[in-house]
Amino acid sequence: MLYVIGLGLGNEKDITIRGLEAVKRCEKVYMEAYTSLLSFGLSGLSTLEAMYGKAITVADREMVEEKADEMLAEASSCDVAFLVVGDPFGATTHTDLVVRAKKMGIEVKVVHNASVMNAVGVCGLQLYRFGETVSIPFFTETWRPDSFYEKIQRNRNMGLHTLCLLDIRVKEPTLESLCRGKKQYEPPRYMSINTAIDQLVEIEERKESSAYNKDTICVGLARLGSEDQKVVAGPMGQLRNVDFGEPLHCLVITGETHPIEEEMLDFYKLQSQGPFEDGRNAS
Amino acid sequence: MLYVIGLGLGNEKDITIRGLEAVKRCEKVYMEAYTSLLSFGLSGLSTLEAMYGKAITVADREMVEEKADEMLAEASSCDVAFLVVGDPFGATTHTDLVVRAKKMGIEVKVVHNASVMNAVGVCGLQLYRFGETVSIPFFTETWRPDSFYEKIQRNRNMGLHTLCLLDIRVKEPTLESLCRGKKQYEPPRYMSINTAIDQLVEIEERKESSAYNKDTICVGLARLGSEDQKVVAGPMGQLRNVDFGEPLHCLVITGETHPIEEEMLDFYKLQSQGPFEDGRNAS
Repeated sequence: MLYVIGLGLGNEKDITIRGLEAVKRCEKVYMEAYTSLLSFGLSGLSTLEAMYGKAITVADREMVEEKADEMLAEASSCDVAFLVVGDPFGATTHTDLVVRAKKMGIEVKVVHNASVMNAVGVCGLQLYRFGETVSIPFFTETWRPDSFYEKIQRNRNMGLHTLCLLDIRVKEPTLESLCRGKKQYEPPRYMSINTAIDQLVEIEERKESSAYNKDTICVGLARLGSEDQKVVAGPMGQLRNVDFGEPLHCLVITGETHPIEEEMLDFYKLQSQGPFEDGRNAS
Repeated sequence: MLYVIGLGLGNEKDITIRGLEAVKRCEKVYMEAYTSLLSFGLSGLSTLEAMYGKAITVADREMVEEKADEMLAEASSCDVAFLVVGDPFGATTHTDLVVRAKKMGIEVKVVHNASVMNAVGVCGLQLYRFGETVSIPFFTETWRPDSFYEKIQRNRNMGLHTLCLLDIRVKEPTLESLCRGKKQYEPPRYMSINTAIDQLVEIEERKESSAYNKDTICVGLARLGSEDQKVVAGPMGQLRNVDFGEPLHCLVITGETHPIEEEMLDFYKLQSQGPFEDGRNAS
């Protein structure tokens, strides 16, 4: 049996009772490293191991993709847990793992949990008023893609909000190592709300199609679901200057807002409008 | 302090450790009745009370809306838990409660959990490829609204999937009781996938705008997140004849599907194509 278990968004206490019972039943426990090391850190890993009463093998994306067969072979003879930050179906990689398991005739049980896709509702914007979700990748010198621009524009034309997921670069091989054939990795990078806004503004200046502008109300959410989450609402141009602190960040670009949504956003609004606003007023 | 705690989608074991600890700290515990009595039933309520070690006051929508001030007055002097099936921000009513609390200066803590909005990913359709969510209300003799039709069409034109939430009628006053001024209630009604499809087909026949047809691939999901959930994928016209069993039901109308999505949907596909298909093959 393969258990795919969502850990939720905050710390070790965000697992469900059902999830915890399943982990304790399993003989082998894997955890995806893509976002989990960020959420839990190395010290968090030992907290989890103590809580579960067993060792955890951290599986990076390469391992999940390359060594899935090994993991699945185990799951065909004993109970294996695969732990995922958020909900199991936030990422295509996990769907792929489940497909492989099912093809091998392995029974799969999913334990759901909160993910960014629903927890973003905490800011007061109603989930059923969101359009298509977009991902914003890091620009490079030569690669400055803008396919998300059109999606944001479509959503806003329909009055819908847009959740922007911001790039995570973990275990990217260095250019040098690719040439040498021996893998070395860049340090991990997580896109901040500030960088995302810079990129969004750059694209608007290039396209001039008025998908949004510096006065468009946005909501920045950092460390969503954790004790020290920070949510700030305000014009895009002003959020640019807010220090949201540690990753992970995400950004919502609003469409049309309803009164109940506005009342809730008010609690997260920037108070002062100065250029060095630090958002201290917001929770 | 007001804790708004998501219970997730299945049974009492779907609460998170963080949520359980918070409930145990609280002096008063309320639970919204709108969907919870369906998920837990009256016997489930006593299971929850035993698990939490305290009494639960079931608050129907009227109570939440009318007596919120009373509940909030308590929260200003002690710790109060408000339990919600799924994630706290699935319904506008809960946002409204949080707004009222914050206006009274009461601190609010939210404990997230899985909701239909993300757990629907279990069928293999990628969450970031969903457009606007729609709600399908029960038709009456004289009221047959179709505003959701256009939204489905827009989503499909963009290649996006549509999550259809199906109507729940709980504690609706009878027409007779409204006339007499003494409240009596209709028995609760939950829309089935079959009824939803009948209504969708009726609207398509009226509009003739080809938003979808009987061959459009859909996914029916019943009791999502619970041990006996049932997921069946197939043409809309064939899903019409599948017995999905007890509520709650929801329906996804697919847009364009990617190979990884199709591989996953295959596991949920109808095997036989007969008129009395019961979907026994699907999990």
